[in-house]
Amino acid sequence: MANITEPRTLSGFMELLPDRQVIFNKIRRKLEDIYSLYGFYPLDTPVLEYSEVLLAKAGGETEKQIYRFNKGDTDLSMRFDLTVPLAKYVAKNAGELTFPFKRYQIGKVYRGERAQKGRFREFYQSDIDIIGDGELSLVNDAEIPGIIYRIFTELGITDFTIRVNNRKVLGGLFGLFGLGGNEAEVLRIIDKIEKIGGEAVKEELSTLGIDMKAAEELLELLTRKCTSRETIETLRGMSGKSELLDEGVNELAIVTEYLTGFGVPEKNFRIDLTIARGLDYYTGTVYETMINSHPEIGSVCSGGRYENLAGFYTNRKLPGVGISIGLTRLFYVLNENGWLSEDRKYPSEVLVIPMGDDFSRAIEVSEFLRGQGISSQIYYEKKKFKARIGYADKLSIPFCIFIGEDEIKEGNVSLKNMTDGVQEKYSLEDCANVIKKVLADDNARSLVKSL
Amino acid sequence: MANITEPRTLSGFMELLPDRQVIFNKIRRKLEDIYSLYGFYPLDTPVLEYSEVLLAKAGGETEKQIYRFNKGDTDLSMRFDLTVPLAKYVAKNAGELTFPFKRYQIGKVYRGERAQKGRFREFYQSDIDIIGDGELSLVNDAEIPGIIYRIFTELGITDFTIRVNNRKVLGGLFGLFGLGGNEAEVLRIIDKIEKIGGEAVKEELSTLGIDMKAAEELLELLTRKCTSRETIETLRGMSGKSELLDEGVNELAIVTEYLTGFGVPEKNFRIDLTIARGLDYYTGTVYETMINSHPEIGSVCSGGRYENLAGFYTNRKLPGVGISIGLTRLFYVLNENGWLSEDRKYPSEVLVIPMGDDFSRAIEVSEFLRGQGISSQIYYEKKKFKARIGYADKLSIPFCIFIGEDEIKEGNVSLKNMTDGVQEKYSLEDCANVIKKVLADDNARSLVKSL
Repeated sequence: MANITEPRTLSGFMELLPDRQVIFNKIRRKLEDIYSLYGFYPLDTPVLEYSEVLLAKAGGETEKQIYRFNKGDTDLSMRFDLTVPLAKYVAKNAGELTFPFKRYQIGKVYRGERAQKGRFREFYQSDIDIIGDGELSLVNDAEIPGIIYRIFTELGITDFTIRVNNRKVLGGLFGLFGLGGNEAEVLRIIDKIEKIGGEAVKEELSTLGIDMKAAEELLELLTRKCTSRETIETLRGMSGKSELLDEGVNELAIVTEYLTGFGVPEKNFRIDLTIARGLDYYTGTVYETMINSHPEIGSVCSGGRYENLAGFYTNRKLPGVGISIGLTRLFYVLNENGWLSEDRKYPSEVLVIPMGDDFSRAIEVSEFLRGQGISSQIYYEKKKFKARIGYADKLSIPFCIFIGEDEIKEGNVSLKNMTDGVQEKYSLEDCANVIKKVLADDNARSLVKSL
Repeated sequence: MANITEPRTLSGFMELLPDRQVIFNKIRRKLEDIYSLYGFYPLDTPVLEYSEVLLAKAGGETEKQIYRFNKGDTDLSMRFDLTVPLAKYVAKNAGELTFPFKRYQIGKVYRGERAQKGRFREFYQSDIDIIGDGELSLVNDAEIPGIIYRIFTELGITDFTIRVNNRKVLGGLFGLFGLGGNEAEVLRIIDKIEKIGGEAVKEELSTLGIDMKAAEELLELLTRKCTSRETIETLRGMSGKSELLDEGVNELAIVTEYLTGFGVPEKNFRIDLTIARGLDYYTGTVYETMINSHPEIGSVCSGGRYENLAGFYTNRKLPGVGISIGLTRLFYVLNENGWLSEDRKYPSEVLVIPMGDDFSRAIEVSEFLRGQGISSQIYYEKKKFKARIGYADKLSIPFCIFIGEDEIKEGNVSLKNMTDGVQEKYSLEDCANVIKKVLADDNARSLVKSL
């Protein structure tokens, strides 16, 4: 061969081996199923947009990371999140949409960050948002943690905490403590408390030239260890001093109250007054989700309430609430730590192995199984028996069916359970039932080892 | 508001309204399910690749259409098909893959073509390929039409024909008729016969300076109307004159023979000696799929056998067979012609409408339904009754559940079937069963109106 080009993949671009991709896709589908269960429409927007449209709001760090280029006379950019395309979509189609508009989108986004282990330049985000026309009921804010709860428990992650806060509570408290003018700065610093600790936060705050006594009192209040009920009570105790605070506390109380109805147990939920989620976007409820045994991973599902989705594209006021899962990053962490179940990584449930040269019966058997919803492939290649069964082994296919002269004559099949090694002859119908029974147990197992 | 940017979407980039996206995603999922049923692994490769890698083979028209740019020092291109990324992937990971390697990929590809109605610059391809290591059994070539058949019938398209040919048959015949030296040119012209007709083909052939008598005889043979069996018999009658022809006829006969086993009825299958599918890639079996009543659409699923997938990336010989569906284009045609079913375009199966201010029971009911696998959303907004029921109407949600004081007191629900307008009170369990029964019928209906 003359010219061989080395088959390289760009760094920061996840490209999985087949048995990982199977699991990734099952997780993705689980998310789709759950979003649909709550009535979210699927949405699919282009990866490429006019730079002018995509960057209407962006600036600073984001803009530097963007994949932007010209094709002919057109200035194009690859999307860097799913929120801006949603804003564009809703503004563009507002006349044809029915509000509240609930949509999910699972898609790839692009950020040309410095390559680093566990950081991706192409990655999936998995977003849901509920957009209102002019206004949107607060009960939607309570439904969101219910969805987060279902997602993580159904994936097999049970030891997690959904942390909820409200930006109005923070804003109100800042006003009360006389730190209102420095809100953005102080919030940015407090947001880091999980990472750098209380002392470091105090130190950073002291560089702002603010009233440190007030800052320390506020910090003490925000980080006080207590139950959600106690937090609400403490905040209610300050009632009447700040309209903004009272509004925030009221919202937080309603969200907390409805949560139990949505099936979220107390142990998976906590009010955390320190979370702020960025500076200029969220205006009410905010969420973060932590895996309790692994806080170092950071939040695996975050979001909140915003006052206006698409102010850059329309004068129509479109409030909303939503959350986002960094799916590629989450998968990477689960896989790197060996937390993914290895139970269902096979491409098919059955491998049919014809022992002779006539494949007719093998095809018939395979088609019968497919008709029963059992995925099946046939080994057609002329290889030694060891290679054939080795194929099933390497692909972790749970069942082999052998079709030899005897089986053809007798009209039955030899079924081998590859897990326990037991091989028996069955009629085709019985064989399908045996397989279905075992697979039902397999499919009931979660995709993530209990976490 | 100060600066409003017009929320535009690039032309040639499909962006569907929600009720269309629902159907698109159901079709996509149907394809995934069928590919899985035959044991294909899912695969997901990056949209961006090193230009050097992606364009190792490309040239001419393809290269001009590519979205190519620099980010820092890196020369990047967006993928223009899923075959080149597959070749790269298999060459890169050959040591870790088990052969035959069967994969499907449904993903977006990019071609900066001139914008035109029904032509897309970003579009989904839906590909399957079976790759062998050194060799690959011919029976795989027979399985492929079985998969095509299942896809189209399960979508609801029944009146279609899978056309099969073999490049070796064509090559052999060209040799026999003394047209071997002009094979590429003649093939290119014959490939257009569907579009331009036999006379125009003859005219174009005459410009090549070839033996026109031979060309006309060959053309007559290729376009003769007969059954697949008769075609094989005719070709067998020429046996012994060309090794290549004999090999090709033998392959075509085996593929045809096994087809019935894979469940493909005679009426959905035909040997068509005029199809060639491009010039330099396919080496054996080739496929096209036509919707009989609408030949103007062209082939909706095409592919074939190739001798070597990844010669540009590795010295390892990797023969394969595969097909591709232009999913975005297919969807566009189905939608434009009104051939899509309107039965299942809703985001949720149930809309729960609380009649008072307490949402607890509505949440409880909704959670119960979700636990039963029924998708349900709650109307939380404070609107008049007409607006609430209008929401279900506009979204084509098939069931409404009303929760008023009576229902809360009695512990039951009022269920309204939005299709026939009938409203009745049920216990929660009975309500779920009524809904499930109706939905089972809905879900049994195909996504495409019978075509």
